[in-house]
Amino acid sequence: MSIFLVDEYKNMEPYVPGEQPSDKLYIKLNANETSMPPSPKVFEALSKKEIWNMGFYADPNCKEFRQAVADVYGVTEEEVFVGNGADEVLSFILMSFFRRGMKIYFPDITYGFYRTYAKTYGLDMEEIPVKEDYSVDLKDYMDLKGDIILANPNNPTGLSNTMEDIEALVAKDPERMVIIDEAYADYSGETALPLVQKYPNLVVVRTFSKSRNMAGMHIGFAIASKEIVEDLNKIKFSFNPFNLNGLTMAAGIAAVKDTYYFDKCVKSIIENRENFKAELEKIGFEVIPSKANFVFCKSKEIDSKTLCVKLKEEGILTRHFADERLKDYLRITIGTEYEMMVVLIAIKEILAEASEEKELGIKKAI
Amino acid sequence: MSIFLVDEYKNMEPYVPGEQPSDKLYIKLNANETSMPPSPKVFEALSKKEIWNMGFYADPNCKEFRQAVADVYGVTEEEVFVGNGADEVLSFILMSFFRRGMKIYFPDITYGFYRTYAKTYGLDMEEIPVKEDYSVDLKDYMDLKGDIILANPNNPTGLSNTMEDIEALVAKDPERMVIIDEAYADYSGETALPLVQKYPNLVVVRTFSKSRNMAGMHIGFAIASKEIVEDLNKIKFSFNPFNLNGLTMAAGIAAVKDTYYFDKCVKSIIENRENFKAELEKIGFEVIPSKANFVFCKSKEIDSKTLCVKLKEEGILTRHFADERLKDYLRITIGTEYEMMVVLIAIKEILAEASEEKELGIKKAI
Repeated sequence: MSIFLVDEYKNMEPYVPGEQPSDKLYIKLNANETSMPPSPKVFEALSKKEIWNMGFYADPNCKEFRQAVADVYGVTEEEVFVGNGADEVLSFILMSFFRRGMKIYFPDITYGFYRTYAKTYGLDMEEIPVKEDYSVDLKDYMDLKGDIILANPNNPTGLSNTMEDIEALVAKDPERMVIIDEAYADYSGETALPLVQKYPNLVVVRTFSKSRNMAGMHIGFAIASKEIVEDLNKIKFSFNPFNLNGLTMAAGIAAVKDTYYFDKCVKSIIENRENFKAELEKIGFEVIPSKANFVFCKSKEIDSKTLCVKLKEEGILTRHFADERLKDYLRITIGTEYEMMVVLIAIKEILAEASEEKELGIKKAI
Repeated sequence: MSIFLVDEYKNMEPYVPGEQPSDKLYIKLNANETSMPPSPKVFEALSKKEIWNMGFYADPNCKEFRQAVADVYGVTEEEVFVGNGADEVLSFILMSFFRRGMKIYFPDITYGFYRTYAKTYGLDMEEIPVKEDYSVDLKDYMDLKGDIILANPNNPTGLSNTMEDIEALVAKDPERMVIIDEAYADYSGETALPLVQKYPNLVVVRTFSKSRNMAGMHIGFAIASKEIVEDLNKIKFSFNPFNLNGLTMAAGIAAVKDTYYFDKCVKSIIENRENFKAELEKIGFEVIPSKANFVFCKSKEIDSKTLCVKLKEEGILTRHFADERLKDYLRITIGTEYEMMVVLIAIKEILAEASEEKELGIKKAI
């Protein structure tokens, strides 16, 4: 720490980014990414011409990209804010609409970034406990005085709330902002987007990192009232006017327009998820019904931390959370059909070994 | 404005991004960009393989990129902070080391972003007047209590301070942070970088937008003590952990390593600048001696605003500033040899026309 760091940040908790080991090639199912390439249109978009013209600034208003997103989602360009990843979009939202000490509510089990931001920048966060079955009960939020942020589907559980319940929450108090983080919504088939034009207190955040196979490009966007988008743009222009570079926008425009490839990819992940869930259940796993591109599961035969370590030894990365309420489960990202087949074989082998060892242990004891 | 915007931001001044007209093709000399392509190595780096792997997050620690920058500048990776453009780097610096109400000093004539940031985020900024000849006299800053930010060379004048004076300023008070924005330093041949390892209160900010022909990629970096870089990274991880995407870092690594192409480009811009200055002086222009990739100049024959408008009609964009102390001058970015030849011809034609009109006016009056 330098002597210059502002006092408020002196007790910042260090953020721990997800594991990215490079000692060997892994099947990477620990960060809800995908080994599928982006749309073929993205390859075309990143042309020699685009690179040649790199000497000029890209449009800080991101007009063409916002229009492309607006066209696909049936809103106007003025209702679209684009950012350098959904995290940046979330940060600009929190920066614009929350000052130090202001109340914000979110579930105690959800995407960790909300807590990181709120703690670092001094928001008065309150974490509402999820139910025994990990579900978020929106009745708990109905009467809260203060803004709310929810991931729907939630992470790391994959559980989602119905649009009826979300609409009731948003409608309850027009002066309360409700931010719905829909990073995984394409895999649930349900979205709060149609509500945006009806409720000016609703902000929906989306990402290209999951369903568009572009985590490495860090593109996110928000859809909200044009007044909210105008505010976000003003804040952005005072912080980093050129937050999306030319190549990133060219890739984003090509990707968002290719709805055919997008639908194909989403459909395959949903199929792989349902098949993988069924296979896991056949071998005695409990699998929380996920609407996302991951499953949160546990086996009676082996504890999840051990399974995570053993899978890593087999070249497969999954995510185990140490938190008390999460430690019994393992989060496995849904990859390609081939990747899920390999994971399943590895899990079966690990379980067989564990059961052999157990038997051996019993025999020895006898 | 939405009802949700935090009060502090309600009077935000709208930032006005530089003109990017698209009604026709322009020779664009208004934003200190370049029509030269990035290093050929950048074309190689943005390969099919890189695009194919876009589904995975890039390294949020940016290790490989920071190491590449460190190697070129003779520092360690821990002394390099990389960001999504120099503006983002500056914002993370100001966010980490300045709270609302904290004093910051900069010249009254300099890069407009410092004022935008300071006003929006409530820093107690004080603008120190530059001298009659637009120079920044560092004696004015020696005894100031509070942190200082200086662009060196300065923008839009192109004037620069000596490293002796900068060192004296930095050395004067080890508890005062001095931020030197060296966006244009490659064109001056002087840099404060060697001072960083001697003075832990010095932060040097750099960009790929000028001398590396990559404005469209928005890459910036800071070199400072490892404690300062550690602070910046913590703040970054709480705001936008993945601030540089994979393609951007691949391009950045390729570009920074290609010192041969870089040297060639810088050398050609300096040559073009000196030739263009000499030609302007031949036709009666006053040209402030610039150490950057632009000249700040005025003609006795025509006022600068009119010249700017007429050049635009000829398909050439330059930058006129309306501020009282700047309005007599025109800032012209230094482009390729061909571009500067075209600009010079256009200026000569415009001057000839103006002188004809003047003569005609005199004749008519007689």
